[in-house]
Amino acid sequence: MSSIRGFASDNNSGVHPEVLNAISKANGGHVVGYGDDAYTKGAIDKFREVFGEKTDVFFVYNGTGANVIAIQALARPFNAVICPDTAHINVDECGAPEKISGCKLLPVETQDGKITVEGFQKYMHAFGFEHHAQPKIISITQATELGTVYSIGEIKKIADFAHSKGMFLHMDGARIANAAVSLNCSLKEMTVDAGVDVLSFGGTKNGLMFGEAVLFFNMDTEVVKYIRKQTAQLHSKMRYTSAQFMAILSNDLWKRNAEHANQMAQKLAKKLSGIEEVEITQKVESNGVFAKVPKDIIEPLQKEFFFYVWNEERSEVRWMTSFDTQEEDIDRFVTLMKDLLNKR
Amino acid sequence: MSSIRGFASDNNSGVHPEVLNAISKANGGHVVGYGDDAYTKGAIDKFREVFGEKTDVFFVYNGTGANVIAIQALARPFNAVICPDTAHINVDECGAPEKISGCKLLPVETQDGKITVEGFQKYMHAFGFEHHAQPKIISITQATELGTVYSIGEIKKIADFAHSKGMFLHMDGARIANAAVSLNCSLKEMTVDAGVDVLSFGGTKNGLMFGEAVLFFNMDTEVVKYIRKQTAQLHSKMRYTSAQFMAILSNDLWKRNAEHANQMAQKLAKKLSGIEEVEITQKVESNGVFAKVPKDIIEPLQKEFFFYVWNEERSEVRWMTSFDTQEEDIDRFVTLMKDLLNKR
Amino acid sequence: MSSIRGFASDNNSGVHPEVLNAISKANGGHVVGYGDDAYTKGAIDKFREVFGEKTDVFFVYNGTGANVIAIQALARPFNAVICPDTAHINVDECGAPEKISGCKLLPVETQDGKITVEGFQKYMHAFGFEHHAQPKIISITQATELGTVYSIGEIKKIADFAHSKGMFLHMDGARIANAAVSLNCSLKEMTVDAGVDVLSFGGTKNGLMFGEAVLFFNMDTEVVKYIRKQTAQLHSKMRYTSAQFMAILSNDLWKRNAEHANQMAQKLAKKLSGIEEVEITQKVESNGVFAKVPKDIIEPLQKEFFFYVWNEERSEVRWMTSFDTQEEDIDRFVTLMKDLLNKR
Amino acid sequence: MSSIRGFASDNNSGVHPEVLNAISKANGGHVVGYGDDAYTKGAIDKFREVFGEKTDVFFVYNGTGANVIAIQALARPFNAVICPDTAHINVDECGAPEKISGCKLLPVETQDGKITVEGFQKYMHAFGFEHHAQPKIISITQATELGTVYSIGEIKKIADFAHSKGMFLHMDGARIANAAVSLNCSLKEMTVDAGVDVLSFGGTKNGLMFGEAVLFFNMDTEVVKYIRKQTAQLHSKMRYTSAQFMAILSNDLWKRNAEHANQMAQKLAKKLSGIEEVEITQKVESNGVFAKVPKDIIEPLQKEFFFYVWNEERSEVRWMTSFDTQEEDIDRFVTLMKDLLNKR
Repeated sequence: MSSIRGFASDNNSGVHPEVLNAISKANGGHVVGYGDDAYTKGAIDKFREVFGEKTDVFFVYNGTGANVIAIQALARPFNAVICPDTAHINVDECGAPEKISGCKLLPVETQDGKITVEGFQKYMHAFGFEHHAQPKIISITQATELGTVYSIGEIKKIADFAHSKGMFLHMDGARIANAAVSLNCSLKEMTVDAGVDVLSFGGTKNGLMFGEAVLFFNMDTEVVKYIRKQTAQLHSKMRYTSAQFMAILSNDLWKRNAEHANQMAQKLAKKLSGIEEVEITQKVESNGVFAKVPKDIIEPLQKEFFFYVWNEERSEVRWMTSFDTQEEDIDRFVTLMKDLLNKR
Repeated sequence: MSSIRGFASDNNSGVHPEVLNAISKANGGHVVGYGDDAYTKGAIDKFREVFGEKTDVFFVYNGTGANVIAIQALARPFNAVICPDTAHINVDECGAPEKISGCKLLPVETQDGKITVEGFQKYMHAFGFEHHAQPKIISITQATELGTVYSIGEIKKIADFAHSKGMFLHMDGARIANAAVSLNCSLKEMTVDAGVDVLSFGGTKNGLMFGEAVLFFNMDTEVVKYIRKQTAQLHSKMRYTSAQFMAILSNDLWKRNAEHANQMAQKLAKKLSGIEEVEITQKVESNGVFAKVPKDIIEPLQKEFFFYVWNEERSEVRWMTSFDTQEEDIDRFVTLMKDLLNKR
Repeated sequence: MSSIRGFASDNNSGVHPEVLNAISKANGGHVVGYGDDAYTKGAIDKFREVFGEKTDVFFVYNGTGANVIAIQALARPFNAVICPDTAHINVDECGAPEKISGCKLLPVETQDGKITVEGFQKYMHAFGFEHHAQPKIISITQATELGTVYSIGEIKKIADFAHSKGMFLHMDGARIANAAVSLNCSLKEMTVDAGVDVLSFGGTKNGLMFGEAVLFFNMDTEVVKYIRKQTAQLHSKMRYTSAQFMAILSNDLWKRNAEHANQMAQKLAKKLSGIEEVEITQKVESNGVFAKVPKDIIEPLQKEFFFYVWNEERSEVRWMTSFDTQEEDIDRFVTLMKDLLNKR
Repeated sequence: MSSIRGFASDNNSGVHPEVLNAISKANGGHVVGYGDDAYTKGAIDKFREVFGEKTDVFFVYNGTGANVIAIQALARPFNAVICPDTAHINVDECGAPEKISGCKLLPVETQDGKITVEGFQKYMHAFGFEHHAQPKIISITQATELGTVYSIGEIKKIADFAHSKGMFLHMDGARIANAAVSLNCSLKEMTVDAGVDVLSFGGTKNGLMFGEAVLFFNMDTEVVKYIRKQTAQLHSKMRYTSAQFMAILSNDLWKRNAEHANQMAQKLAKKLSGIEEVEITQKVESNGVFAKVPKDIIEPLQKEFFFYVWNEERSEVRWMTSFDTQEEDIDRFVTLMKDLLNKR
């Protein structure tokens, strides 16, 4: 029943075979539910190997769940969360952060999905003034929703500023593997070492069936288990979440998948660069390509390879590559595009 | 890494092979995310075959998610939900219903987990009085948390009463398959035909890896998709949820699994009935056995076969059977129990 | 346009002349809004004289506001609040505590509105178990909604227990003045000295136009100002709230008002005690009288002196006295009752 | 204890004598609580005389309460509220709208506090897409937080657009009287006749002690009483709120107060226009004057006449006039400013 591989989203791809295999292997006999099992202990150990011993790990179902639990753990309802206006928490979670955490989101306009300290200075007058929601979290996405990537230095600068104001730095890492590969650094260097306090570690977009992990670095996480449960994000048969994370963290699978996806995005971008009518609008630093294309070819192109229009006014579209994208997919896609452009 | 089969919970068991197989088969190529795929359409069609054409289906991750979405869909924050004091929503969801829906829960004391119209009469004075949360939902669990089962007539009586007061009847069907088997009726007779408005259809406790479905009968469900998304219960790679439901609804798998589990509970109960020191405390009508046992054998027994103490004061424990429980498990368990009792 | 003095509620009475006078006197020129004014400083000083220097005071509009702010300050959404099932927070606030704080309420059945440590033992198994909302607050009402009064010893026992479990003791003091007069003790002895952590100090039912105060004893209250603002309970022209509290705390006005109301309740109870058909159902310890009366006289009696039926099944009614109740009101009321009873 | 009249806010002024007098007159005997009294009926009738028979009126304590009740009545938590980024609901309510309604706020940048249909076009792509909070309310403030005023035509255009999209138009009328006087129109022409669906009718900033009214035009308001109660905004001794509104709606008091305040703002602006160092930054259309002033005179000026800095970067301040502002206040203020400027 599956359709061909397209460029709609990295969650349109399936489950990586190594992940599916790990699930199958976990399927024997009874184990205690809700995370008190050997698979979960093993996956947590894997995370601590990668991010350090002082990392606390909470598995959840999806990215919105991860982000919303992070916010609740770090802030109270009278607090505010500063984020780029393009952030998933701001745009793509149907208001879940506000509804579930009670916190206000303070969006910062950006051109490339990356905020800077200068960009959110305007929100820095609120401290101590009871009429204003109190900024407590800065949330950045790595890689961003626009396919760009913060440098380690850029992250450190934001982290230092956040900490100097008594705020926390949250990273939405739905595509964290793609970012690490892009920066050619370890997952740790880009996160805990750069000052990130809490990380939504994404799995689904990098070959998992479902599942994300919320990672807390050097923090007291005593209450997080209650927050996870109350947010309906506690998996009873947790071993099947944990087994997936064990797989993705083993044998560099996270890296192999991300490397491949990033390379495919580079290939796509390169092939598009020769087409006059297509203007790439963001740096291609991870596994997404953003481009302006002639309006009239969008619909016929979508019929063969479904993808999303990012900005209707600008006729800007988004193409995502995935761990399973093949060069032939790109070739066929670009060929079709050229055909459509020639026929105009 | 898995341990032996015990009687702790029907969610300590694994995934039924037919379900796992369906997942594997779904793992090819790309499909559109968030439910706009053929697997999801197929699973919804299956549900409509079972429950009727006017059934709307929303897949979610887990039981708490299902219940909380049902409540939000049916009620507003100033409403109240009447339920047995033993209800999962009242006891086992860490306050998620109150936190996420804003609604008040009005617990009704019961002996066997089943409420009656008489039992909640005390809450029927509130209508129209702005100082009191307005009852809008009656929520029953089928089979109950105590292993008992409402008859169709009992459900109808509650449904009729609810509707006469402008209220809805919600059924938490975490173990609905076990109840249908117990009553020897169809899933439809016990739910939509009996007046149930919304059903949390359980999968995880009957052989799924994860996943529940919220079923709305003859209702306008236009807003439910937003509620699901805002409650962080929308699976991006939805096909893997849907494929599981297709499997469980095919070839009577739901029924076969539940029949087996129920039979195992009967066998366990029968074998226990010969032990003087063990007093079964609830009718064994589905896949749970509740019993008072001597305090001193609980811990040594748990070491071999983990299970939960239900009520410490009464020294009452809960034993759940599952689709994969084997007669030999029961034999070994009862033998151990007898040994422990003899050694006292 | 005002009607005669009845026994419906102590909030049906008006504003005590000394309070109204204080308001008028405060009405000159400009003062800074939101509490940064001399009236508010003065009122806070008064409260500290009464309750001790380590008392932090937050003025709010009404009792529901006070209770809900107390809960938010002491607990997080995954926490639970233990209270008598008759508590105002449980019955009369339309679910505001659950909706606004996110916390679950755990009601304890009582005969007289007073809970005991034994009564809520059943909720003491939840600690540390993530499936259960975590008890964090015990909330008692003094005087209770049934007109009874906790002794200082009873309060101490609950406070000690709460603290031994890491919980807080909240007192809903909507009628705290009536209770202190009843116990013939100071406000301090019955609250902070008895172990109360946070007190909703009632004003409206004791002669104020509006306004309650949330008092925190020996606590860090840094975040409470944000909670108050976010709960829409911050009065811009705060001086008019504060001036009322200065009046009620001056010249023992709180005491005089409560003494009078309590005495009137005693008088009413005494006169009723001679009527065979009327059975007083609760100890008359503050300013309320609860009684069973023949069903058929309720309506004609209400027409002259409006009051509320407390329990329809039991034909039990509630009569409240107020600072402005007069002996003649009682005489006329009892006379009418006797007439109605004679005519039957 | 009161200080001199300044320009900090129109809520630093006291209570208008006619309002205080009405309160005193209401202070006799007992009346039923919570709004079932003759004062409240009278005040509602007054509102219906002004806004038409199909107006439903709910009295609340303050502006935040009014706004938050309006939002809850019109929208569900998955909905969004479009508003100018300067809106009180967006900036000055400590996140109460998000926390209490669960809705997302979608801020629109403006220069003058007034939004246009063009300004919020960017939010019009969300309809039907479950990942985005669904816009349901457009909220405008009249007069705006920047002292500007929407023309009737501007309001109509927004209302028509809102209704064409199935959205509602909410007006935050904290200073509605000042706006009506500014436009020289009736309250009705500017609101219900222009397409406003729900109005937060401000009282406190125009001479009341406390109290706002939420007005619903041609709408089903059956559930609003529960929302008000659950939001802790139901005044038990309601007559004292209602009496104030009867006073302000009688003998054109609302108009006289607003006219005076507006005239004082004009006078202040005129006197400032002669000062080179002071640049008025917004049109003076109601009772506020916004101006850039040299940074070094702000503090010494504030010491005598307290006021707020609006934008530190721009050295922009806000001066509000009130019903009790006197010409001599303005003269003294401007004289001091000139002195300070001369001394530099």
